[in-house]
Order: sequence, then structure tokens, then C-alpha cells
Amino acid sequence: MMTTLAFVGLGAMGDPMAAHLARHARDHGHRVLVWNRTAAKADAHAQTHGTQSVPLTEIAAADVIFTCLPTSAEVDEIMTALRDRLRPGAVWVDCTSGHPDAAARQADDLNRAGVTFLDAPVSGGTAGAQAGRLTVMVGGDPDALDRVRPHLAFAGKVVHVGGTGAGFSVKAVNNALLGVTLWATGEGLAILGRAGVNLGAALDVINASSGRSNASENLIPQRVLTREFPATFALGLLAKDAGIAVDLTQSVQGSAPVLAQVADLLRGAQRVVGDAEDHTAALKLIESMNDTVLK
Amino acid sequence: MMTTLAFVGLGAMGDPMAAHLARHARDHGHRVLVWNRTAAKADAHAQTHGTQSVPLTEIAAADVIFTCLPTSAEVDEIMTALRDRLRPGAVWVDCTSGHPDAAARQADDLNRAGVTFLDAPVSGGTAGAQAGRLTVMVGGDPDALDRVRPHLAFAGKVVHVGGTGAGFSVKAVNNALLGVTLWATGEGLAILGRAGVNLGAALDVINASSGRSNASENLIPQRVLTREFPATFALGLLAKDAGIAVDLTQSVQGSAPVLAQVADLLRGAQRVVGDAEDHTAALKLIESMNDTVLK
Amino acid sequence: MMTTLAFVGLGAMGDPMAAHLARHARDHGHRVLVWNRTAAKADAHAQTHGTQSVPLTEIAAADVIFTCLPTSAEVDEIMTALRDRLRPGAVWVDCTSGHPDAAARQADDLNRAGVTFLDAPVSGGTAGAQAGRLTVMVGGDPDALDRVRPHLAFAGKVVHVGGTGAGFSVKAVNNALLGVTLWATGEGLAILGRAGVNLGAALDVINASSGRSNASENLIPQRVLTREFPATFALGLLAKDAGIAVDLTQSVQGSAPVLAQVADLLRGAQRVVGDAEDHTAALKLIESMNDTVLK
Amino acid sequence: MMTTLAFVGLGAMGDPMAAHLARHARDHGHRVLVWNRTAAKADAHAQTHGTQSVPLTEIAAADVIFTCLPTSAEVDEIMTALRDRLRPGAVWVDCTSGHPDAAARQADDLNRAGVTFLDAPVSGGTAGAQAGRLTVMVGGDPDALDRVRPHLAFAGKVVHVGGTGAGFSVKAVNNALLGVTLWATGEGLAILGRAGVNLGAALDVINASSGRSNASENLIPQRVLTREFPATFALGLLAKDAGIAVDLTQSVQGSAPVLAQVADLLRGAQRVVGDAEDHTAALKLIESMNDTVLK
Repeated sequence: MMTTLAFVGLGAMGDPMAAHLARHARDHGHRVLVWNRTAAKADAHAQTHGTQSVPLTEIAAADVIFTCLPTSAEVDEIMTALRDRLRPGAVWVDCTSGHPDAAARQADDLNRAGVTFLDAPVSGGTAGAQAGRLTVMVGGDPDALDRVRPHLAFAGKVVHVGGTGAGFSVKAVNNALLGVTLWATGEGLAILGRAGVNLGAALDVINASSGRSNASENLIPQRVLTREFPATFALGLLAKDAGIAVDLTQSVQGSAPVLAQVADLLRGAQRVVGDAEDHTAALKLIESMNDTVLK
Repeated sequence: MMTTLAFVGLGAMGDPMAAHLARHARDHGHRVLVWNRTAAKADAHAQTHGTQSVPLTEIAAADVIFTCLPTSAEVDEIMTALRDRLRPGAVWVDCTSGHPDAAARQADDLNRAGVTFLDAPVSGGTAGAQAGRLTVMVGGDPDALDRVRPHLAFAGKVVHVGGTGAGFSVKAVNNALLGVTLWATGEGLAILGRAGVNLGAALDVINASSGRSNASENLIPQRVLTREFPATFALGLLAKDAGIAVDLTQSVQGSAPVLAQVADLLRGAQRVVGDAEDHTAALKLIESMNDTVLK
Repeated sequence: MMTTLAFVGLGAMGDPMAAHLARHARDHGHRVLVWNRTAAKADAHAQTHGTQSVPLTEIAAADVIFTCLPTSAEVDEIMTALRDRLRPGAVWVDCTSGHPDAAARQADDLNRAGVTFLDAPVSGGTAGAQAGRLTVMVGGDPDALDRVRPHLAFAGKVVHVGGTGAGFSVKAVNNALLGVTLWATGEGLAILGRAGVNLGAALDVINASSGRSNASENLIPQRVLTREFPATFALGLLAKDAGIAVDLTQSVQGSAPVLAQVADLLRGAQRVVGDAEDHTAALKLIESMNDTVLK
Repeated sequence: MMTTLAFVGLGAMGDPMAAHLARHARDHGHRVLVWNRTAAKADAHAQTHGTQSVPLTEIAAADVIFTCLPTSAEVDEIMTALRDRLRPGAVWVDCTSGHPDAAARQADDLNRAGVTFLDAPVSGGTAGAQAGRLTVMVGGDPDALDRVRPHLAFAGKVVHVGGTGAGFSVKAVNNALLGVTLWATGEGLAILGRAGVNLGAALDVINASSGRSNASENLIPQRVLTREFPATFALGLLAKDAGIAVDLTQSVQGSAPVLAQVADLLRGAQRVVGDAEDHTAALKLIESMNDTVLK
């Protein structure tokens, strides 16, 4: 049976994700509608991958709607535009790094239209998106997840982590931990640099030792020590995600002083260094505060 | 030419390290002297591995002296006992997770006796020590390192990271980062747990995502979620090491607010939970502060 | 002209505040309605101070309604119960240490009923309430403030700080600073105590020096060093207020790492020490983390 | 009996302190020797206040030697120059904001020459020094303090706080608390400013409320909101003092995560804003991190 899939938001992540969807659709006789705020990107996607670029309202005809947008606020706008036209029985899979509070509200809203909301943010970066090897963490109804699971063509791993909002919560915590490991490793290297230690050798050791992390193994050697800071994931978005972890702490009345501290330092770095810089450029604030360069 | 090697400090790390030394010595016609505060452990080592258990003063006869003790203070005691008897030209390889300030002083002291000091702490835990796959980070004279390198039989990887004290500095930063990743991941799981998220699933996702670290991949699943907290590396020692990173920050007049906060939280956890508990038991303080259990 | 004043919430703060209102009403020919969840307290207030204890719905008849409740959530409940009966032209003065987000919503809600909302939290503690010397920080329409100003009989000082929510924001920041000064001074005394310094002498010096604060001058000498911890302001409420400052930071996308850290430490102390303990009992967690007693 | 007093270090604090000493000496028939690295300042002091400007070695002839220098390192230099010439029975009163570890060492050193060391740092700033109303916190032998107490002509309050080093420890904690209150109040105002609150009104409220401190009452209104930042106490010195509190925490193996974070943020501000700026200019880093100006 032909299924109509739709993908909204063809950014650095969404564009290759929708390409995997297109490949999957071709293999199984489905079709893929795409929409993007800048229509030219949707048209180009259609041209390149055989998807259909449609007006936003026609997205509502899909059986499965994927959204992948900067924040939950943009998802709200799309949802407002589509809500009254959605097909009962459809599933809305939001791959945005969204907010658990928004998930609760959005799920309620869609539920009234007979549509199921799954929060399904992804991890793996643009490289993972291009390779179709993203990790998808899903909150919401497990049966709905089972129905859409065959269509998660961009995923290398799919994990159901809990009820509505749980996917966004796990993503926020993951990214807060990304922020913590990045920042703390930057601090450690800054003081080692001031002490005259060779930073490449220090990272080599750390990466064979107990203090290693994705930040120390991949991000800092590839992006910071090279001084390249390629802007694939914006500092403003990392600060936003770390802020969602802070909101989660507040919402469960928990105590997470280190996540809290780092979220606010990242926000500060965002102001000093710039929203649109790569997230690893947060370490430029550490460099200023230590009068040193990490190289 | 027969070389006399000596190993002082047959604790959880030193005992298997000295066993690898013994194997190496057998293969190359060297001999290994051992000493331990509790003499019975040295005698047992001699019995099992063919080393020689000797009075402390006889250790001074060695060409290469290895020490692996809890802190630089214990190394100072041994050094005071041996200093006047050491052989000029010998190399003292201190595998303790020591203090950079102590290294400077100890190197000066030994230098006056014609002996070279290398700070050469190790990473890899008791498992790495048993497998002979430790990472050794070495500060001090690179020529002296070249001379002793053939005898580092317990090492999987040896990296020269800088001048005297650089090895201790890198080790302190590595362990501070171990503390940060452990603590921050504990915080993240605590708030996810309060939000009703399945912690095993959350870790599964994080470990396939950008927030992963050695703590999230190995320590927390194996030691915390299992509630085993096997005491292989004491919380008191981790707090000590994180404190050395704080001292280093002070000494270079650097700025490392996250390392600083975590060092003090670990010290607090040590007081609340107990010095001798496994370092992962620091998360029990996070559990109390969040009224939750990480399982 | 007789004005009908109403006071909802006769807790440790509200009871003496409403008493001052009663005195003022007697002097000027007004009347004061009171309501409290536990009706007996309202009846006792009426008996003692000549106010009128009425059913909740009759509160809606007042020209000026004061609320003084634990959190904005309780204000929401009262507002829901009264909204459809309120008198157009009335002013609702919320003295709760409420949430700026709630203020925005509540002001909108009341506006539709022709009622003006002022967020007007107070500072000064139960002593200030009894003396009628509270500081009132007011957000919202300055003309409405001018109309109710003569009735703020419990105030020693009234300051208009900005638009709707500004009063709650300033109160949250004030209480976050209370939390910071309390906690940091506790830390400082803990390490001095471990160093063998006389804590009374140390406080004596600090209070004549640049590090002094209300916490060091009043709270710690009177409540902590005496080991009395009299429960006049609950730790759970201080943690809540510090959390509102965190929410404010998030809402303006600001960077306040120290306020963030302390808010989470206070929340942790609340879990370990107990919600209902006096706010100064937060220092018991510092004591545990330093294995010392502040006395 | 004529006593010879000496004062070394005629900086912004020392110059007026020595002037009070001169007044006291005139009244009681004592004499005052002064020395300063820049001899012209000593000569000018002699001219203006009737003290005697002498070569450094002649300072050793004094019965009571006061030092007031930037750090313990400068005191060490003076002590090395004078040690072999000191009069047995003399008392050395070090008013530097020094280091407890240095105090222990210096006291031992002097003790061998029959001289008693008192660590006696002062608080009150240049205004307090000029008014002769400084608070002096003294560590060391109480009998020695009793002997020199009549000569503390610059003091408004003298408190014996404990053994050798206790004075420096209390001073370090006081200044760390100054740093915390300054920084945290700056954060609070930054987020209130972003929220559109009038900062003067907010401070007015806070200063009548529980979150007030010397920083909120005096420093920020006079130095920050005015944008004057008059350089009377250098940021580099405040960062140094907060660092001494960190060293103290380490030395007693205590837990002070807030003092630790703020010390490192102050050090970072010092790097970004400049060593020689007024300590209140630390808030310029907060301003950058919040893209706002505190005015």
C-alpha cells in the first residue's frame, strides 16, 4: 500500500534525512512530499531526489509527517498552519531538538485531530544524516513508533526512551553532556597549555585514558586544534539545547549544578563568540579567559 | 648487560605492573627488586613472580626505580629514605598520580644525587595494569625516557608530554575530566530518572550520540546502574587528583570554573559517601540531592 | 468613600500583613475581607483584628484584592474561582513570590475582566511583616499602583520596578542573591572552621569588611552559629525562588552561572535536609560535605 | 620608652596607614622608619608626615616592622634582605593580603631569628586607610598582638582570629565573598536588565531586602552603574585573594564549589578585562556574556 510521507525542514540535517526517505520511498513504492521555508531548497530536493515540492497546506495529506526545524517554536507555526487539515490516523514525527513542554502541548493538540505526535530527535550530526546512520530517540506511543519505524530510513539506531517528551529530554541531556565534555576538556587543555604541555600529546593520552569523551576524541582534535571550527552545528543551538536540560531540571525540581553552570557558560560564549559559529567555538571564550590559544 | 629494576608500592595497580616487569626481566636477563610497606605483599610477589623482596634501603641499588604510591607525600618518604644511597646515573620513574609541584622539587633533589626523575603516571585502571596495556604519560628529560622505555613492560602506550611535572599535570587533568564526565552524566541521568525516562535506554542513546564519554560508556552502566560500585579506584583518590588539577589552575593562574566546581563536589561526595568507596559512588550524593536512584 | 479590601492567604507573612490592613481600614473607614484555606485561621483573624471572614466567592466583591500564597499555582486556583465574579475596575495585588511567566498570563486573564493585576512581592520576613515595614517591589501599571498605594499599610518602602512581572523578577533575583550569600558564606566558614579559625571572630571581621552581606550579618550569626535554624522561611520556598531566577535567565537567554549553580545546590540541599526546614538549614549540606559543624 | 616602628610598602593602602603611624609616633615619642621600592615615595612620606626614609637594611633596626605589599612573594624578598639583621624580640606585622602557607614558612623563618611574625591583613579599602578605621584580622601569638596593639594606629577594629595564617585565611575568605557578592549581583542585574527592569530601582529594592551585601549597597551603585570603575583595588589582586581561598580549600581538603567557581570566573575576567582595572570591572565580562550594559 502506498504511503504518503512528508518532510518539513530541509536544513543541514533535514536535507540528507529527506534524501534517505526518498530512497526508501522509491524502494517501497511510497511518495515523499517536501516543504521548506525557502522554496528553492525544496524544489532542488525534488529535482535531485525525486521528492515532490508542495505548498505547505498539501503536507497535511501525508500519513507520516516529519519535521526537522531549529526549535519547537517553528514546529508550532507549521502545526498551526496544518492542524485543521491533518488526516486522522496520521503520525507526526518531530525530529527537531525540541522542548519537552512543547511536546506535551503539541501531542495534546494533535490528539484532538486524531493524529499521534512522536518526539523523535536525532543525534549524529550532518555526517550521520548523510550516511543514514542517525540515532533516533523517541518519546510517545510505542505502537505509533512501530507503525512509522519502517520509514525511519535515516536511522542507524532507534530507541524508545519513554512517554511524550522523553525523546526531547534525552536529546537535551545528551547535548548538555556534549556541552559539558567540550567545555571541560577545553578548560583542561587551556591550563595544560599555560603549563607548557604539548596539547596534541595531552589529547593523545587522554583519549587512551579514563577522561576521554566524544569531545576529546573527535571534536577538539578535528575542529579546535586545527583552528577550523567548521560551522556544522551552531553554538546558538547547543546553548539552546543545554538550556532545555536546565528547563527539565527545573520542571522535575532536580539538582544538576554542573549542567546548570555549563549551560550558562555556553550562553555566555554564544553572546561573546556569536550564535552562528560552530559549537566548538565556545572554547574561544575559554581561550580569552586563559589568554592562551588551543593549538 | 643486566639491569637492576626496582618497584616500590605493590597496591592494586603496582602489583600487576611489577608482575609485567618481572616477566620482562626474565626475558631479558634483568632482575627486579620489590618493596612494599606491608612486607607480606612483597614476599608474596617474589614468590609468585620471581622478583626479590628486599629491605627498603637495598632498593637504592637499582638502575631504574619505579614508584607507584597513593600520593606524592608517600613518594617523598621513600625518597628521603633512599636519597643518600642512590646510584648516580639511575632513573627514578614515578608512576604515582603525583603533584606537579612535588615533581619539580623531587627532580631537583634527585638531580643533586645524579639521578634523573621522570613523572610517569599511568591510566587504564586495574584492568589495564593486569593486561599490561597502561597508558603512560611522561614528563621530564626525553633522553632519560628513551633509556627506560624498554623497561616500561606494563605499558600499552607511552607518550612524552613535556618537561618535569607535565606527566602529573596531564594525569590530573585526565582524572578531573573523568570526574566531570562521571558527575555530569550522573546529573543528567538523575533528572531523566525523575522525568520517568528509562535510564538504560537513555544511556544506550547517549552512547550512540555526541554526549558520550568513557564514564557513560563503561563506568556508569557497569558500576552504577548495576548498583555494584566495585571499589577499584577510591573516591578519595579521584578527589585528590581533581584537586591537583585545581592546584595546576592556580599555579598557572588559569581559569577553569567547571573543573573547579566538580573538584569541590567530588570532595564533598568523598566526605558524604566515604573516602574508600569506589569513585563512581560519588553519584550517591547526586542521588541524595535528587531523591532518586540511578538504576 | 468606603473601599472594600480583601486579603487571601493568612500564612506567616499574610496574617500580620492583613492585620496592618485592618488597622488601616479602621482608621479610614474601609472594610477588610479575609479568606484562608484553613477557615479557622480566617475566623481567628476576624476575631482578633476586626476583619470579616467570608466564603471565597465573596472575596470577588472587593475593590482591592491582596493575595499572599506559597506559589503562583495557588494564586491561579484562587483566580479561577473568582474570575467570573470580579468587579471591573478592581485591582489585584499579588504579594506572592510568584513567577514572571504567571504574571503575564494572570494579567492578561484579569484584563479581560476589567481588573488590573500588579505583581507586588514583599521582602522583610515575618519580622518586617509584623512591624509593617515590608519592602514591596511592584510590576505593572503605575497608575494602578498609585490607586492602591494608600492601602499598602504593611509597607515600609514601595518601589515600582517595571512592567508586569518585573516585581516577581526582582524578588526572584533578590532571593537568589540571598541564597548565594548564604551558601557562599557557609562555604567560607566551613573551610575556615576546618583550618581551626574561630568562626565567631571570623564573622565579626567579615561583617566589618568588604565581604559582608545580610546573610553574614544577620542570618548566620542568629540562626546557624546558634544551631537554632528557626523555621520562618522554608528552604523549599527559597529553592523555588532561586529556581524562578533560573527561569528568568532562560527566558531572557542570559548567562548567570553562579545563580544557576547555587539554585541547583539549594535544590539539592532541600532534598537532603528537608523542604520545611528553615532556609538557613541549607548549610547543613555544606557541613556534611566538609565534615564540620558551623558553630 | 621610645619604640622604633618601621613601615615597608607605601602603596595606596600603606601610604595612609604609615601616616597614621606617624601621627601616633608623634603623640607618644616614637619614631617611624619608612621604605618603599620607589624611593621618591618614601622621601615624600618623610617630608609630609615626619617619618624617616631609610635604606632597606636599616629597617631591620625597628622594634615593630609593618609590611603592606601586593603579595607574600614581595614580603619574602624583604624578609630575605632583612632576616640576618633583625633585632631579637621584634615583631613583624604583615598587613599584606598574604598566603597562609607563606605565613607558616615566614613565621618559622623569623622565629629562628627570635622575631615573632603576625599575619595582620586589613580590610576597609583606601577610604578606611585614610580614615584610620581599618579592620585588622590577626593570626599568630596573642601576646605578641597585645604588645603591638597600641601601635595599630590605622585600625578601627582589631580581631585575633587564630594561629599563624588565620589572619590571611580570613582575609582570603572575606575577599572571596566580596568576589561572590559582586559577581552574583552583577549576574542578577544583567538578567533583570535584559528583562527590561530598571536597575537602579532593582538595587534600591535589593538593598532594602534579604539579598543585600556590601557589593549591592556600595560597590555596584557607586562604581558600576555610574560607569566610573575607579581603580582603587585591582581586579588582579581580588582574583589573587579569591585564589588564596581556593588554596585554603585545597589545603584543608574542604568543599567550596561556589567559591571555587567564582575564583575562576574572576581570574577569567582578569584576563579579559585587565589586571589593573578596578575589581568591579569584573562585571564587564558578565556584560559581554549577556550582551547588556549595567547602567
